[in-house]
Formats: sequence, C-alpha cells, structure tokens
Amino acid sequence: MRRKKNITLNLAELAARLRAQVTGAADARDVTLSGICTLEEAGPTKLAFVAGDKYLGRAAASKAAAFLVTQQTVVPERPCLVVEHVWKAGLKALDIWYPDEHAPAGAHPSSVVSPAARLGAGVSVGPLAVIEEGAEIGEGAEIGAQCFVGRDARIGAGSLLHPGVRVLERVRVGRGVILHSGVVLGADGFGYEVIAGRGVKIPQVGTVVIEDEVEIGANTCIDRAFLTETRIGAGTKIDNLVQIAHNCRIGRSCGFAAQVGIAGSTKVGDGCIFWGQAGIKDNLTIGNRVVLMGQSAPTGDVRDGAVLVGSPARPLPEMARIFAAENKLPDMLKRLRALEKKAG
Amino acid sequence: MRRKKNITLNLAELAARLRAQVTGAADARDVTLSGICTLEEAGPTKLAFVAGDKYLGRAAASKAAAFLVTQQTVVPERPCLVVEHVWKAGLKALDIWYPDEHAPAGAHPSSVVSPAARLGAGVSVGPLAVIEEGAEIGEGAEIGAQCFVGRDARIGAGSLLHPGVRVLERVRVGRGVILHSGVVLGADGFGYEVIAGRGVKIPQVGTVVIEDEVEIGANTCIDRAFLTETRIGAGTKIDNLVQIAHNCRIGRSCGFAAQVGIAGSTKVGDGCIFWGQAGIKDNLTIGNRVVLMGQSAPTGDVRDGAVLVGSPARPLPEMARIFAAENKLPDMLKRLRALEKKAG
Amino acid sequence: MRRKKNITLNLAELAARLRAQVTGAADARDVTLSGICTLEEAGPTKLAFVAGDKYLGRAAASKAAAFLVTQQTVVPERPCLVVEHVWKAGLKALDIWYPDEHAPAGAHPSSVVSPAARLGAGVSVGPLAVIEEGAEIGEGAEIGAQCFVGRDARIGAGSLLHPGVRVLERVRVGRGVILHSGVVLGADGFGYEVIAGRGVKIPQVGTVVIEDEVEIGANTCIDRAFLTETRIGAGTKIDNLVQIAHNCRIGRSCGFAAQVGIAGSTKVGDGCIFWGQAGIKDNLTIGNRVVLMGQSAPTGDVRDGAVLVGSPARPLPEMARIFAAENKLPDMLKRLRALEKKAG
Repeated sequence: MRRKKNITLNLAELAARLRAQVTGAADARDVTLSGICTLEEAGPTKLAFVAGDKYLGRAAASKAAAFLVTQQTVVPERPCLVVEHVWKAGLKALDIWYPDEHAPAGAHPSSVVSPAARLGAGVSVGPLAVIEEGAEIGEGAEIGAQCFVGRDARIGAGSLLHPGVRVLERVRVGRGVILHSGVVLGADGFGYEVIAGRGVKIPQVGTVVIEDEVEIGANTCIDRAFLTETRIGAGTKIDNLVQIAHNCRIGRSCGFAAQVGIAGSTKVGDGCIFWGQAGIKDNLTIGNRVVLMGQSAPTGDVRDGAVLVGSPARPLPEMARIFAAENKLPDMLKRLRALEKKAG
Repeated sequence: MRRKKNITLNLAELAARLRAQVTGAADARDVTLSGICTLEEAGPTKLAFVAGDKYLGRAAASKAAAFLVTQQTVVPERPCLVVEHVWKAGLKALDIWYPDEHAPAGAHPSSVVSPAARLGAGVSVGPLAVIEEGAEIGEGAEIGAQCFVGRDARIGAGSLLHPGVRVLERVRVGRGVILHSGVVLGADGFGYEVIAGRGVKIPQVGTVVIEDEVEIGANTCIDRAFLTETRIGAGTKIDNLVQIAHNCRIGRSCGFAAQVGIAGSTKVGDGCIFWGQAGIKDNLTIGNRVVLMGQSAPTGDVRDGAVLVGSPARPLPEMARIFAAENKLPDMLKRLRALEKKAG
Repeated sequence: MRRKKNITLNLAELAARLRAQVTGAADARDVTLSGICTLEEAGPTKLAFVAGDKYLGRAAASKAAAFLVTQQTVVPERPCLVVEHVWKAGLKALDIWYPDEHAPAGAHPSSVVSPAARLGAGVSVGPLAVIEEGAEIGEGAEIGAQCFVGRDARIGAGSLLHPGVRVLERVRVGRGVILHSGVVLGADGFGYEVIAGRGVKIPQVGTVVIEDEVEIGANTCIDRAFLTETRIGAGTKIDNLVQIAHNCRIGRSCGFAAQVGIAGSTKVGDGCIFWGQAGIKDNLTIGNRVVLMGQSAPTGDVRDGAVLVGSPARPLPEMARIFAAENKLPDMLKRLRALEKKAG
C-alpha cells in the first residue's frame, strides 16, 4: 500500500535524487516542492509531469512549481527537471511522496490460518483473512484483510492480495501478482450437459494458473477449467469486472480493459489489447498483438496484429467505411427510390 | 434496513396518517389493510399504488382492497385514498409496514476496529467488519457485517454500508451515502506505461471522493485516481456492476444503470442518464443532461442535452432512421442490382 | 468441493464401475489409468472423453491411454470404454478421481451465528461466516467461509454457498442451489422517483426467491423487488457478473452466460439461452426457448422460440442478411453515385 508522506524538498535536492538537470530561472533550484500533481490541478508547491509534447500547452498554463520533462518537453522559462525518461524518473518521485509500505509480517490474531498451511518468511496476513489447509504463501506475500485462500492454493512470493480477494482451492498464483478487492479466482466454469433431457452440472475439477507479474482488477472473475487449467500469461494486466471463462489460455503481456468478457476455451496470444466491454465467444483462437476496440466482438479466429472494431467485429479501416456509409443510409434509400422512379 | 411489520389498520386510519381523502362506497373507510402490493399481485387486504393514468386499466382488474391515487387516477367504484402526490404519500405508507431500522449503535465484538479509528456517536459496526487506523466514521453511520474501511478513509454521517463493502485507504465518502454489498471504492486505476519495452505499473496514489447522498449498487467498482481524485457528484445514483475508472469526474444527480462502464479521465456533467451496458471511452467530456441508451457508446465529446443511441452512438432521431434503413438494406442491394442491369 | 484423489486403476476395473465394454487390442484391459484429461493434454495414463464424432480426429492424435466413447465414436485400434452416454458415464469417472466432499458439519468457532438462527442437521458453516437472527439453513447446506446470510433469510436443504456470498435479509434460496463467491442476492432494486424536482429513493421492501437447483456465478447480482419478489425459476443456470434487476421473473431451465444484464420488471420464459453480454431492457416479456446471441439487445417483447442477434436485436436470418449487406455498403454508395451520373 502506498502511504502519503508530508515531505518538503527543493528542486536541487529532488534533481539529485532523480539524477536530473535543473533548467529555468537562476533561482529554480530553490523552488520548494511538497508533492506531485496533474498539470491542471497542481498548486504552487507541486511537481507535474510533461510526458510528451502534446502536453506543452497545458504545462504552460499550469500553476505547478516545476515540471518533470525530457529535453524535448522543457517548459520555457519555468523550473524544469530534465531527465531521459519522464515516467522512469516519475516513478522515483512517486516513491518519495508515496512510499510503498509492506504490511507487517505475521498473521493478524483475528485471521484463521490453518496449521496445515505453509507461510513463507515475511508473509503478512490481514485481519479476518482465511487460509485453508495445504495452502502455500510465498515469501513476503501480503494477504489483505478478509481474503480467502482455499485448500492447496498457492500464492507466489511477493504477491499482494488486497482486501476481500477469493483464491479458491488448488488455484496457483505466481510471483509478484497483484489481485484487487473482490477478485474471484477458481469459481466453477459454466459447464452443463443435457442428460436424459435435463441440464446437468459437469463438475469443474481443473484449476486456474496466474503467471508472474499479472495484475487483476476489482471484482474480476476467472473460472476454473473443466479438467486442466485456465491460464493467464506472465505480465498480463486485467482491469475490473472482467470475465474469463473456463479453459481459456491468455498469453503474456496482454491488457484487458474493464468489463471485457472471454467465453470458454478461447485462446488469446501475447501482447493483445482489448478495450472496455469487448466480448469474445467460445473456442476461438486470437493471434498475437490483436487489438479489439471497445464493445467489439469477433465472430471467428483473428490473425496476428489485427485491429478490429464493431459487433460483429471487422477490421478497423473496413468498419470505418461502413460506419461512414451508414450515416448516408437513409439518404441512399431516397436516392435509390428517385432513380427507380426515373428508370420507370 | 427495512423490517417487515405485521400491522393491520383500516382505510380511515391510514387516510389520517397520509392526510388523504377516502373515496368509494360508503363503507370504504372500514376496509382493512395489512400491507402494500403491486396492482397485479395485491390480495384483498392490500393497498396498491396508481402512479399514473396508464395504470388505470390494471387497477380496475386488480384485487387490491384499496388504491393510493391522485384526483386524476381515482379508480371508479373502488376504495381509494386520494392524495396530491402518490409517491410522496406512498413513502409514508411504506414506512408504516416496513419501517427503517437503524442497526444498534456500537461495534460488534467480532469486528476489528483500530483504536486509532474515530467513530462518531451512534455508529454501528457489524460483525467481522474491519476499520483500520486513522479511519473516521461519521455520526450515525452503519458499517455492515464484513465491511472493510481502510486506513485514513472517511465515511460521512448517516451513511450506510451494506455487508461486504470495501472502502480502501484514504477514500472519502460523504453524508447519507448508501453503498451496496460488494462495492469496491479505491482499487488502483488501470495505469501502465511502457518503460524500456515493458509495461510498468504506475502507482495510483490519488483517491476517490463520493459526495453526499450518492447511492452505489452491488459489486460496482470506482477506481482511485492516479494523482488526484475520482469524484462522484452529490445525489448521483449508480446501479450494480458499474465500472468507473480512475480520474473520472461525474456530476451531480446522474443515474447510471447496471453494467455501465466509463473509462479513465472522462468527465460527465450533471443530470445525465446512462442506460444499461452503455460504455464511454477515456478522456471524453460529456455535457449535462445527456442520455445514453442501453449499450450505446459515444466516440467523442457530447453536448448538453444530447440523446444518443447505438455503438458508435449517434443522436436518437438519426439513429432511428439508420436502423429503419438497415432493415431494407438487403432489399436495397437487390434493387440496386436491378437498376444497374436496366442501365446496362 | 471436489478434492483430487491419487487413484490408479486399470481399464477393466474402470469398465466394471462404469458398466462399460472394453474395445481395442487384447491387452487393453490392462491399461493403467491415473486420471481424466482433455484429448489435447492427456498423457499416457489418462482417460479422455470422445463426446461426439467431431472429436474423432483429435482423439486419433491424442496421447491418452484410453477413451470414453459410444458405439458411434469408438477410436480405431485404441483402448476404449464403450458406454451408452459419454457424459453420464463421465460423471461417474469424475467422481472416482475428484469425489465431492461435504464440509464438516457444525459451525466454525470463528463464525458468528445468531442464537436465533435455525440450522438443520448436518449444516456446515465456514470460518468467519455470519448468520443473522431468524435465518434458516436447511439440512446439509454448506455455508462457505466469510459468507453472510441476513435476517430471516432462508437457505434450502443441500444448497452450497461458496466463500464470500451475501444473501441479504428475507431472501429465500431453494434446495440444491449453488451460489458462487461474491454473489449478492437482495441488494436494493434501482428505484427512484422524482418528488418535488429531486430524485428520491423508493425503499425496496420486496425480496428475491431462488428456486431449487439454480446455480449462480461469481459476483452476479440479483436485486430485491420493490414490493413483491424477483424470482429465478427452478434449474436455471446463471454465469458470472450477471445483473438481474428488481421485479424480474425468470423462468425455469434457462441458461444466462456471463455479463448478461436484465433490467427491471422484465419477464423471461422457460428454457431461454442468453449468450454473453446480452442486454434486455425493462418491462419486456420474453417468451419460452428464446435465444439471444452475444451482446444482442431486443427492443420489444419476444415470441417463443425466437433466435435474435444484434443491437437492436433482429431475428437471426434477417440479421445475417443485413450484416452481409453492410459489408457491401461502401461499395453500394459508389454504385449508387455511378448510376446517378449515368441517369444524369
């Protein structure tokens, strides 16, 4: 958890910590800084980022005391800290005012930790959390308040479960994973078969595997596979309220925005970006580096690098032409009638 | 919480409490009432509302003992309570049979309340709730069972958190706010930057501010801002499973139906109505009193008072013409071919 | 909960337990089996299912030790167990390697069970669960860790609540129901009326009724009715993150995929299938056996047996023609211009 610290330092001191050069007026180095803010809302003791030249107009109008910039985005006549990479230096600046604090090691007395669970060194278990028998929590992991880690589940070293996460039995979570409040990993996949004319539940006896450095947003659900595993590849980032159904295999370094839904057994490659509310049906194969625009829904397999939009989804340039033509559709109808009249 | 009470009273007594006039047969005042129901399901001891003249047909067919009506909606020859405003009087009637009960003041012995949290007079903390250090709970607020209120978070006076709500560190909730089960306020915004070729998490150190009299539905997520605040304006009502991303600013008195999604940094004016599953992309500005129909998705800024439909969203009358023309599209194609043939 | 068991048996033994016939080479009966897997991932000691002849190609390429098949799907020259119904026999096989284990009867010492709640024989209450006064838990039901069962709520015999379910006051859940983690039953319906120019909350004093054998997926929300009940018919299966609003009446034996949303007071018949992200507006009547494709959204009542697609939803064959014509729309525009030119 990031804790806000009341720290004041001047631009020269900050420059030293970020290995930045100071530009601006002669007394720029003495400017006092008390925190970081956006260009729009920064007051006269705040640092603001200029993460690209498109922000230069907003920077000029900003009341910020100073700016974190590259050579290309120096704000004329204003105190600037010039660095090679704004975000890289910005992360260090954020660490100064909002240091990351590890929860204290040990299990809170109100938590219910099975004696048959194994907790690594430095593990923190928050109040009213439950850790069941056979579960294994890696070194330095933080299990937040009111979390549930089921029987024989595994949480990798250094992972962070915010309050109220549910990791159900046998689910395996890698190292450095972040799970936000309300995440459910390992609920039963939605599987039924018609036997003797009625829908019968097929037990979902597989599991979920979350690889290293994955982050999963609040109230997102990833279902347990029928027999094998539902897998989320390393480094993939998933936003809130996303549904990933049983047996899906998601590649590495993907980014899924909020409310995306992926139906059963679909495979997604590496480096895919799916925008909000996009939906993918079951049993499809989506290539690498595929982009799905918001609310889009492919109806078949998708090749590497495709950028799709619409429902049903089509390639972006094609869909743009269709959308444009749609605007003229009522007019086209009239013109068609006029021609027909003319043609007798 | 509303508790059902077994209360029987006659129409005359109810009329006195609601300051209503009784119409109907001579003995209407003696009709016995045991509760409130819908027109369709009301039995012979139930009161039903007639909230507009479009319900008069259903009222005539209803088995209700009596009706709550205005002068304009009197049900002929049936016992009626005539009032100026059906809903205003109806709320009083609901309070008779389903009085609102405040949970008992004090913290349940199973809750985990930090000695460094401040609880106002009359605050109720339910079983197995967690309130962390520095949190501040205003007078008369109710914190339901298994809720989590994080470090330095603030809950305003008279607010109600149903069981299982998570209000994370530093989030500020106003007065008279209602949060339903599973709400998550203050999970990290979905923010990453590519540094040295890989996606790196940008710490989300801002917060969420919920103004007074807001209501937020079950399992809805409102993310913490990157640096400043995600804000929900006073009196705005949000349904279940809604996503509001980091840095959004939502105006006052809006109503968002279930499964709406609003991406990062978008600004929404006052009095907007978004119907179910509507989606808004990031960094847009939506005016005041904008209506988005279900599943619609504007692609750019939206002016005050616009009514949009479709994905991509267009103004309602334009979209209605397009939808109508679409129905004729296969036929248009044939007619076009016929004309081409004729024209040689 | 299904627990994985390390059991090894040979094909002859398994055949006896499943009442199956063994085919394949002479020594097929001696093949050793250690578990069940998919055709693709089965190793040389695993049984795989061949649930239809479309899987025969994949079966031939599979490394599985043996196959569960019907007369129609025997895999040539491979060890097979021939049964009348693959899924029926398969369920028995799953029970061997993943037997269903009932949680131990009794309330975990960390749970908070009101002395005024009634628990049937064999009921299990997990750690840190809360059961409020007047609640009634039927025989053999399992209430998972950190669940909440509110005042006067009822859970039927043999029902299973996974960790972190919230069943709010007065909600009635039938027998043999499965509720997955994060489900919220009985949050307030989204009901407001404008009184004296401002939106006023209408108390939602009805309830939710879940009939027998229903299954509800993770983080799904079903709201309490205004006055009467929101009802889910027997045998209906609902996936994750679904929204069902107040006053809805859902029929029997329906299946709703993830992220479906149904607005207030809509009635749905029996045997309907709604695919992912489909949305239905309020106050509609949907017939029996209606199929809504993914993301579709009907704009009016729907007759029995209709199959709808798109938003707004249209019958499948009609919509397929429109989708096909849309692809030609930009071209149609050009052809129309050409004709106009020709026609002068």
